Amino acid sequence: MDDVFLAMTMGDPAGIGPETIASAWAAPRLHKGRRLVVLGRPETMSAAVELVGGGIDVVEIASCHEAESSPARMPCWAVGSSEAALVQPATIDPRGGQAAYDALAKAAELAMSGKIDGIVTAPLHKTALARAGFDYPGHTELLADMCGVKEVAMMLYLPPEGKIRGAGLGVVHVTLHTALRDVFDQLSTEKILACSKLARRVMNQLGATQPRIAVAALNPHGGENGLFGREEEQLIAPAVEAFRGEGAIVEGPLPCDTLMVRAAAGEFDGVVAMYHDQGHIALKLLGMHTAVNITLGLPIVRTSVAHGTAFDLAWQGDAEFSGVLAATDVAARLAAARKNGCLSSELDAAT
Amino acid sequence: MDDVFLAMTMGDPAGIGPETIASAWAAPRLHKGRRLVVLGRPETMSAAVELVGGGIDVVEIASCHEAESSPARMPCWAVGSSEAALVQPATIDPRGGQAAYDALAKAAELAMSGKIDGIVTAPLHKTALARAGFDYPGHTELLADMCGVKEVAMMLYLPPEGKIRGAGLGVVHVTLHTALRDVFDQLSTEKILACSKLARRVMNQLGATQPRIAVAALNPHGGENGLFGREEEQLIAPAVEAFRGEGAIVEGPLPCDTLMVRAAAGEFDGVVAMYHDQGHIALKLLGMHTAVNITLGLPIVRTSVAHGTAFDLAWQGDAEFSGVLAATDVAARLAAARKNGCLSSELDAAT
Repeated sequence: MDDVFLAMTMGDPAGIGPETIASAWAAPRLHKGRRLVVLGRPETMSAAVELVGGGIDVVEIASCHEAESSPARMPCWAVGSSEAALVQPATIDPRGGQAAYDALAKAAELAMSGKIDGIVTAPLHKTALARAGFDYPGHTELLADMCGVKEVAMMLYLPPEGKIRGAGLGVVHVTLHTALRDVFDQLSTEKILACSKLARRVMNQLGATQPRIAVAALNPHGGENGLFGREEEQLIAPAVEAFRGEGAIVEGPLPCDTLMVRAAAGEFDGVVAMYHDQGHIALKLLGMHTAVNITLGLPIVRTSVAHGTAFDLAWQGDAEFSGVLAATDVAARLAAARKNGCLSSELDAAT
Repeated sequence: MDDVFLAMTMGDPAGIGPETIASAWAAPRLHKGRRLVVLGRPETMSAAVELVGGGIDVVEIASCHEAESSPARMPCWAVGSSEAALVQPATIDPRGGQAAYDALAKAAELAMSGKIDGIVTAPLHKTALARAGFDYPGHTELLADMCGVKEVAMMLYLPPEGKIRGAGLGVVHVTLHTALRDVFDQLSTEKILACSKLARRVMNQLGATQPRIAVAALNPHGGENGLFGREEEQLIAPAVEAFRGEGAIVEGPLPCDTLMVRAAAGEFDGVVAMYHDQGHIALKLLGMHTAVNITLGLPIVRTSVAHGTAFDLAWQGDAEFSGVLAATDVAARLAAARKNGCLSSELDAAT
């Protein structure tokens, strides 16, 4: 099997993105079966490499062919303005937002044209991004626009490690960056079914032969037979029934508190959560540093660390970098699965 | 210090209540510094004792004075109809609901009149309760009615054990048994402040000298400066400010996913959650079997196991009983704190 070729975006230069990439780069595990290129500013990446102890040559490149990577050699495609190097650590700066945007745009372009097999993104800062003129709630929505896709879904995924076994545990969110008050209007049986299919499909790509999917209830106690809400019977149960009708192994709607305990114990491979905190509270508790953010429904492979720019830690050289290793592993596995099989948009295929 | 005197209600005889009490009874830890009485049916408790291996005399009593308890002697005050003994395991039966109700009513009466110092309740089944003619979403609301109190709040509490350190971790829920859709109308700055005070007060009774309280945001990312909702600035932040103005050590509103990671790591003693699943997802993941349910705002002390009747396990003799030990420990500590100090309603005192 050929190596997969992945691009890593630098993220906001004021945050922990550059140093976590630099720290992770030295690990042989990061490189196994992969070619890697960093998209961003070579001067920023060089400073990050120095910060975490040096020993890696940051080599500026201008085409994919030059991207020969190893733990000692970091090819960096210079993207955006050199002004990004002037951004101070832990500062909201439009130049930082612009730099993060530029790297992401280049990554999307390379992935859409098939020059790379997937993207791993380091965190950006939403306010810096907005000050640079790009008003998006996050990477997920920005990438959807860049790829010309309307409906995407975000999965938080825990690789098998520690308590988590099998193929790992993935939670897809039917709604995400929205006020809790607006969740009700955004939920539909169609979306819940589409997210259930995405959960099954991705968990299959990540190694679950027969993915077992659990669909969360929206209300406490699963609505307690209508006493605490009717979304379960009106919206969620029909999606579960339809999914089961297609041969899926699925349970739901299940009260989300005990569902997550069962998922953590290995009873399910994929979970469909109705809103942001339902999935995030559980997955961050189960693996704050190993959780990987996967964007489902894009025509390209994209993963990310599950944390933010962490200005409180930035440019001190101590930031935990295991998230970069995990996100890169997952991107490589998804890219390999895609090379070996489906090349179309996952959402198209799922719906 | 005198022993505290606690009543344990049998719960629904079809569920795991009787056998978990019987299993826990043999543990010397359950009895240390306490006198205990079971309220329910002696014939049911005798059957439960036999199921888990015998060796305990179930002694029918008819007044508190006779309640001399030990690991070998279980005083049982016969409450309700002997028909309860006819209820089949794992069956929704109005006679089971009636039996659970009768035990609880007796417990509330004894506690209100000061004959006992606190109540530990075993699970009831809401549908069986409703079929017996009592339509309540749970113990919490039923006890509020029995005690003539309008506003109560439910805390899930994890004792210090394993990852949880210090005085443990308690999460108060500002709203509880309600459709998620109705949470918005039920939240108010006053209620959030009252629950914050209850959290501080109870965590102080449970051993935190200077309780550190975290108040959760309602929306993802804490509302992201209004982009994902305005309840944070309109309702929650004013409560946090007012609480801080009274000298409390408090942070918030904090995005609930990372808040719970910090709480699990020992940064907070008490958490104020805005709705059921926000608190329950975290606490059940952190300690499914050791979590204790505490009703705050009652004029009496009441704790409970955090699980339900578990019909799938009932009367097989294998049900996990560590929840009964934990709930009894917590009731004893709260009862002792109350004997040594405040005797008034906690909600009255807090608001």
